[in-house]
Order: sequence, then structure tokens, then C-alpha cells
Amino acid sequence: MNGAESLVRTLVDSGVDVCFTNPGTSEMHFVAALDKVEGMRAILALFEGVVTGAADGYGRMAEKPAATLLHLGPGLANGLANLHNARRADTPLVNIVGDHATYHAQYDAPLASDLKGFASPVSGWYHSSPSPKTAAADGARAVQAAMSAPGQIATLVLPADTAWLEAEGPSPALDIVGPAAVEGAAVDRIAALLKNGKKTAILIRGAALKEDGLLAAGRIASKTGARIMCDTFTARIQRGAGRVMVDRLPYFSEQIEEDLAGTEQLILVGAKPPVSFFAYPGKASWMTPEGCEINVLAHPHEDGTGALEALAEAVGAPAEPINVAKLELPDLPTGKLDSFTAGQVVAHYLPEGAIVSDEAATSGIGPAIYTATAVPHDHLSLTGGAIGQGLPVATGAAVACPDRKVVCLHGDGGAMYTLQSLWTQAREKLDVTTVIFANRSYAILNVELMRVGAENPGPKALSMLDLHNPELDWVQLGQGMGVNSMRAETAEEFAEQFAACMREKGPHLIEAVI
Amino acid sequence: MNGAESLVRTLVDSGVDVCFTNPGTSEMHFVAALDKVEGMRAILALFEGVVTGAADGYGRMAEKPAATLLHLGPGLANGLANLHNARRADTPLVNIVGDHATYHAQYDAPLASDLKGFASPVSGWYHSSPSPKTAAADGARAVQAAMSAPGQIATLVLPADTAWLEAEGPSPALDIVGPAAVEGAAVDRIAALLKNGKKTAILIRGAALKEDGLLAAGRIASKTGARIMCDTFTARIQRGAGRVMVDRLPYFSEQIEEDLAGTEQLILVGAKPPVSFFAYPGKASWMTPEGCEINVLAHPHEDGTGALEALAEAVGAPAEPINVAKLELPDLPTGKLDSFTAGQVVAHYLPEGAIVSDEAATSGIGPAIYTATAVPHDHLSLTGGAIGQGLPVATGAAVACPDRKVVCLHGDGGAMYTLQSLWTQAREKLDVTTVIFANRSYAILNVELMRVGAENPGPKALSMLDLHNPELDWVQLGQGMGVNSMRAETAEEFAEQFAACMREKGPHLIEAVI
Repeated sequence: MNGAESLVRTLVDSGVDVCFTNPGTSEMHFVAALDKVEGMRAILALFEGVVTGAADGYGRMAEKPAATLLHLGPGLANGLANLHNARRADTPLVNIVGDHATYHAQYDAPLASDLKGFASPVSGWYHSSPSPKTAAADGARAVQAAMSAPGQIATLVLPADTAWLEAEGPSPALDIVGPAAVEGAAVDRIAALLKNGKKTAILIRGAALKEDGLLAAGRIASKTGARIMCDTFTARIQRGAGRVMVDRLPYFSEQIEEDLAGTEQLILVGAKPPVSFFAYPGKASWMTPEGCEINVLAHPHEDGTGALEALAEAVGAPAEPINVAKLELPDLPTGKLDSFTAGQVVAHYLPEGAIVSDEAATSGIGPAIYTATAVPHDHLSLTGGAIGQGLPVATGAAVACPDRKVVCLHGDGGAMYTLQSLWTQAREKLDVTTVIFANRSYAILNVELMRVGAENPGPKALSMLDLHNPELDWVQLGQGMGVNSMRAETAEEFAEQFAACMREKGPHLIEAVI
Repeated sequence: MNGAESLVRTLVDSGVDVCFTNPGTSEMHFVAALDKVEGMRAILALFEGVVTGAADGYGRMAEKPAATLLHLGPGLANGLANLHNARRADTPLVNIVGDHATYHAQYDAPLASDLKGFASPVSGWYHSSPSPKTAAADGARAVQAAMSAPGQIATLVLPADTAWLEAEGPSPALDIVGPAAVEGAAVDRIAALLKNGKKTAILIRGAALKEDGLLAAGRIASKTGARIMCDTFTARIQRGAGRVMVDRLPYFSEQIEEDLAGTEQLILVGAKPPVSFFAYPGKASWMTPEGCEINVLAHPHEDGTGALEALAEAVGAPAEPINVAKLELPDLPTGKLDSFTAGQVVAHYLPEGAIVSDEAATSGIGPAIYTATAVPHDHLSLTGGAIGQGLPVATGAAVACPDRKVVCLHGDGGAMYTLQSLWTQAREKLDVTTVIFANRSYAILNVELMRVGAENPGPKALSMLDLHNPELDWVQLGQGMGVNSMRAETAEEFAEQFAACMREKGPHLIEAVI
């Protein structure tokens, strides 16, 4: 058994059974091992930004890492932007990066690069495996590192000779250290604060945004009047009918200031104090109101759900939470297709248990409003601001949850970054419906241009934000990659098409011209 | 005048008048300055790999840097693979990377990252401009650094407040230090070696692969019998009728060994000793034959052309070189379309002064053979092995040389990496004809799988190299981005379509099904 096979066996034994990849010569032994080892599903993508984004979407839903398999420094480099997003999502992810044979590195061949330099900014754990004798153990450690709470990116470099030389055999899975329990004293301290009569917001991030954590938070709110909040962009949140509704922080800094005005204490559950996404001239970056006290119930590596449940008990919360969403489906709209009518259609037809991968940017407002009272679903958003995440994350989520419908809501500008995702969806027959909101613009930048104080923009500046010339034809782009694609120009057309996509399994694309 | 405007003015004053970009919020002041400053052409691309690859193609042809404008660390990250290729090509290039305002960095907002970490592996020069007072001078230094021989990547980080705060004004252009002259003693030493009767190869890299350098090399060869060679992958070489023919090093290590067998001395002109592209079990990495002496005529930062001209005089070379290509155009083929018949068509119709951007990989063999005796043209190849370079490089070359036809020969696998290039070609009405060799495969990897010793590959391994399921439809992909696209399945169809593309200006795409 060579090093590559010992590593693949170890990954499978450690529970990593999906590998998203775009391999090259230096990865051929890992690729060859896929047929020798039972239980590893290999999924090809035509660009590494799809590979890493899909591994992120998979990890968010499966709550365990997928492996990637990338081709040396440049292959990793192509995947870095979505690894940045995955890092911001605290997604467990095992990056396997092939490299030149150890003895070949000295020759600085064309594909040689500072691989560690590329990997370090996104990796919580990094190791290059210098020998086939240790590759398996290094793989086990990588999985353990990826799973260390709240989840992180572990990058393991596999030189070609480590892969092809004789190894000892697989290495046993290592123990996973789950989230640490929050101590009772910390819970009691927060419970006492919740009785001080101050206007309180509880800001939650991470796994506590799933149903159980939200239930506990809603119970606390019903007893204490505290407000339940989440960040503007959340890796994963469970929402829809029957679930506690959460106030999402607005995007722009002055909106956040207005929203948090009067808040006297902030309780953090896995979250950081809110800051503005960008800096703007004359506007604040730090968003906690002056005089508001910041308190931590749970750090990111701690068990936020358990802490909220303990806190609910400590404050004597009732069994029933307040602010539970009641099922309320919008009627089907007619006429103009825009973010709001599209949102009504999406909310109307969304099937129970759907997963929404949301990179709709300015077009996401309508869907966000109307799906809040739709059937229960999971919502995944763009965590690190690096656009081009939505299509790959949808791809990976569909691999993780084959029995759930995935709906990807995407702006046209961002979708062009990683449109190769559609081919993988077609190849793997994934149950993803992609809605491209085609406003032919980086619409958010028209807003931002004003906000940063760049007044009276001229034609050259405005043309840098405009995608009209030429217009992208998403039906042809989708069809060209094997995905059944259609165009909707009215609310009625969109409703008919979206309904059909929700009925039929498999990949579909709707270009929603808005 | 704010910092952004002072920087744009300085770039223009320093001769940088093209900016390839995909900007975001933190770059809006730079974007706004484009209308305030005369003389900077801004070209939008829908993905940063296109931005950086286009800047590479531009720099190779214009012999001066284009600027990029990228959106923080993740925007830079998306451009890194083609920056890796540009680094290997020694292309002059000024990367401008927007960043959070200096005072905002402390808050670790979602888009914050280790920007220097991402940039360092590809940058010969790196600086973050902390103040609007120094941004202009930093810009002038970046251009100077990019132009320092043989050319390199200079990355200048522009924090948002540096861009928006009041600046002093533009900074004057700095002197460019051109390639250093090779000393007479070095020339004389090599001249003496060329009389020792040893079997000699002169390996040339860089600017000396243009007409003048090759003429001198050919004269030396005609006097001394030395063999004139170039690397497997060259940033730019001038070839075709009337030019000295150069032996290109083969790709695979055992072919190089055979090719160089018996060589007793190697003279390097801007080149490094040859090494194999990848390591293979049991095969050598170091390709200089045992006992062959390595001598340097010119280092990469030195004037290789001048050195070759001086050497030609020193050895008393005749005015006329040997091995000059005579115009020999293949007849038009019929029947099966493959790399060879396609190559005959390309060579037959290639217009004088064409620029060939070649990432055809396994399909490039035919075109390489037949264009060797076609009309004079420039040939740009994939320098760093990071696939997805050919389409962007063609885009940038067309911007640099608007009066020359650009022909991009590309494998289908690599083309999917940066297909967004087609939209920029359509938007800017660039005179690029793209030929996609559609073999529905990462064909080279089928060869490599065997070469690395991964025997009896199974169906999972083979499926990772196969692009049949589903087949990409390049006509739809091209049309979807506004490029007039067509499909050829026979040599006759390809000849008719390619001829039409050579007659008409503007972007075209031919999917050559082979």
C-alpha cells in the first residue's frame, strides 16, 4: 500500500467519505487509490473555486469535513477565495494539496510555489507530509484538527513521492474533541444580568442558530424580553414556520447603529461584537452602542446551544418560546418580476426541509422577507464576502443532503465567478434549482459608490459596475454545462417555472430577469 | 485630489495606461478617479483570474506593465494562479489591491484576510500604502519595480482611507533601470568555449527569443555549430518564416534526456538549467547530461540580446544565420479534424503578425509543427503550469496590440477555468479568435496517470480525467457571453470557419471537436 492509499483509507476510517477535486499529475496516486478503497465518493469540478466552495457547503450541512484534492500551489490558489469564506463560516474542511516530490522541490520547476504561503491565511492547521510512513497519521490528525470546535480548515500537503512510496498502512481515527461545555458560573452570571432590567440583545452565531439553540433562546426571550439576533451573514441558520424568529443585523453601518440604538447590554453566544462590513468616510466601524456592556455567554469553541439551554433553565424560562414563526405563505404574484415577487414565489413553493444557498445580494431582500414564514428550511449565506460562493455551496449541500431540495438564489455578477459549478451539478444529477437574478449589474456597487463619497461618478466609473454590454445569456450558459435552463421575465413565468423545478428532482436553472 | 486620484495620475505619468479590474467597495475611489484622469483605459473582467491573466498577456506584448485593480485579499486570491504564471513569465505587472481602511483592519470584518500572505508568493515587490501622502510615490516605485529587468510583479495595497483622504498630488515617474549589459569578459569567455569543439547547446529565455536575439543566435550557430534551444514553455517567442528556428525542449523528462544526450556544454542566456516539469518514480529531475558543463552568458536580469550580438561578433559569425524558417504553408486538409489537420488550417490561414496564445496542451502538437514555417508571428505559452491562462493572455495581448490578430488555441479542460474572458473580449470587441480543442478530457492526465506508475486505473480514477458527462457545449457558452461561436467537426468545416475568423475583426470562438 502506498502513501496515497494509506491516506485515503485513513480519511474514510475517520469519517471523511466525500472528496471534491480537480486533480493533476502530482495527485494521480491519490486518484488511483480511489478505486482501491471502498467508501470515498470523488466528485470532479472544473475549477478549484467550485471544489472548495462545495466542500464548504458540504461541511455546513454534514457537520463533518469533506476532503478536497487540489493540484499544487496554483490549484490551491484558485480555491482560496472560497476557503476564505469557509474559514469565516467555521466550516470543518480537510484540504489535501498535492505537491512536487520532496526531492524535486529544489529544482524550482514551473509549478513550484510557496504553497505554505498560499495556504496559511486560510488554514487553522497546516502540515506537509514528508514521508509515506507518516501520511496516514497526518491525515488522521488533519481530520481531528478540522473537527476541533467550532470547525476549521486543515490543510495537508501530500508530496508526490509521499503518495507513491510504500507506506505502513492506514492510521486509526483520532478522537474528536467536541465543543466545550460552558461552566455553570458563566451561565449564572449571564442569568443575573438578564434580571437587571437593561435592554438586552443576545447575538448568536454558529451551531446555536439551529432549531435547538433557537428554541432555548426564544424561551429566554419570552421570560426576559431580551432580543434574539444573528449576524448579517450566517453560515447556517434554521428558519421558517415553527422556529424562533431571529433579528438579523442589517448590512449598512448606519442601519446597524439605528437598529442597536438603546441596547444596554449585548450577550454573545459564539459571536463577536458587530462591526461594519466596510469602512466609510465619517461613519463608525465599531457598532456596539456607546455605554452598552458586552458579555460572553459562550465563546466560538464552546457549546452555545447547551449554554442557551442552561440559561433558559437558570432564568426560569417557560417551555414555550415567543416569536415563533407561523406558517404564512404569500399568494402567487402577477406582473413585474422583481426581488419581491420572486421572493413570494420562492416562499410559496419552497418544499419542507429545503436548503437555501443565498448569494442574491441586493436581490435577496424579497426572498428573505417572505421565506421567514415559509416551511422550515436551512439558510446558508455568504460568510466572508468573497463573491462566487453560492453556486458551489449549493453543490456541496446537495451532496451532503441528497434527499433535500437545494435552492440557490444568486446575483448574476457573483454567479459568473464560479459558474462551472453547474457542470458538476449536471454530472452528479444534484437536486439544485439555481435562480440567477439577472439585473445585469454589480448593483450593490452603485450604492457603495455613493456611500464611500465618490460623488458625481462619470461614465467610466459607472461602466465598471455595469454588465449590460454584452448581456449574459444564462440560459445558454446553463445549457452549455448540461443544466436544464429557462428564462422568466414576469412573475407568472417565474412562478410556473419555479413550481416545476420544485416538483422535479435534478439540476435546473432559472434566469430571473429583473 | 485624493489618494486614489494621485495614484491614477502617477500610474499614467509612469506609462501605465491600461487597468484590468474587477473592483468592489474598497476600490470605488480608484474607480471614480478613472473619470477625473485622462489616459487610463479601464477594462472590466467578470473574474480576477481574467484580470491578472490579461495583465500578463498585455505585459508580454506591450513590454510595460498594465495595472490590475483587485478587491481585497479574496479578489487577489482569485487572481493568484495567473499571477503565478506571470511570475514565471517575468512579466512586468502592477497589482493594485484595495484593502479595508487602515483603522478598520483591527475589527477583522468578514473580508479581512492576510493580504500580504496571499500576495508574497507571487510578488517580487510588495508594499501597503499607509497614507494618501505617500500613495503616489508608492505607485511610482511600484512601476519602477515592475519594470526592473527582466520584469516582475509589484503589488501595491491601497487601503480605502489612503484612497479617499486628501493627497499631495501625483508623483513623477521614476527612472527605469533596463537590463544590465553583459561584460565583455563574460562574452569572451563564452566565445573561447565555443571554439573548444564540444557539442554545445545555447538555451535562451526571455527577450532574447525575439527576432534580434534569435538572429544573433542563428549567426553564432552558423559559425560554431552550436544548437539554439528554448524552454518547453516560453513567455514569448517570435517564430515563423524569416526567423531563426529554435529547438524547443520536449515536455517529458525521458524525451529531454534523449534530446540532450551527448551535449557537452550548455550556454545559458537568461535561462536556468533544464529540469523535468514533474517528478516521476525512477526518472531523473535534473536534465543536464552528466559531464555537461553549464556556463552563463547572460543572467535573467541582463541583456541577453546584446550579449548574443556581442558573442556573434566575438566568434566572427557571418551576417547570415543558419536555420532560418522558409515560408511553407500546408495545403488545406480534408476529413478528420484532429490536432494535425487543425494545425494545418491554422498555419495556412494565420495572418502576418498574429499573436498565438497557446494553451492547447496535448492538442498543441499539430499547430506547433505547422506554424513553424507559417508567416511571422508571436507565440505565448503557459509559463507556470497553472491552467486557465490562455484565454486571459489572449485578451490582454489583444488590448496591447489592437492591430494584430490574436489566435487562442486552448484545451477544453483549461479553458473552463477562465471562460469569463470571452465576455471581456465581446465587451471590448477584441480581435481574438479562440479555438477550443474539445476532446472532452484532461487528456494529458491519461498519459500522466500511466507515467507516475499508477497502473490499472479503475473507473473512478478514469472518471476524474473525463469531461464527457455531460459534454460541454462551447457554442452555447461562447454565445452566452456574447461571442460569435461555432462548431467544427471536420477539417473542411474548421478550415471554412477559421478562414472567416481570420478575415473578420472581432471576437470569435470555434469549438473544434476532436
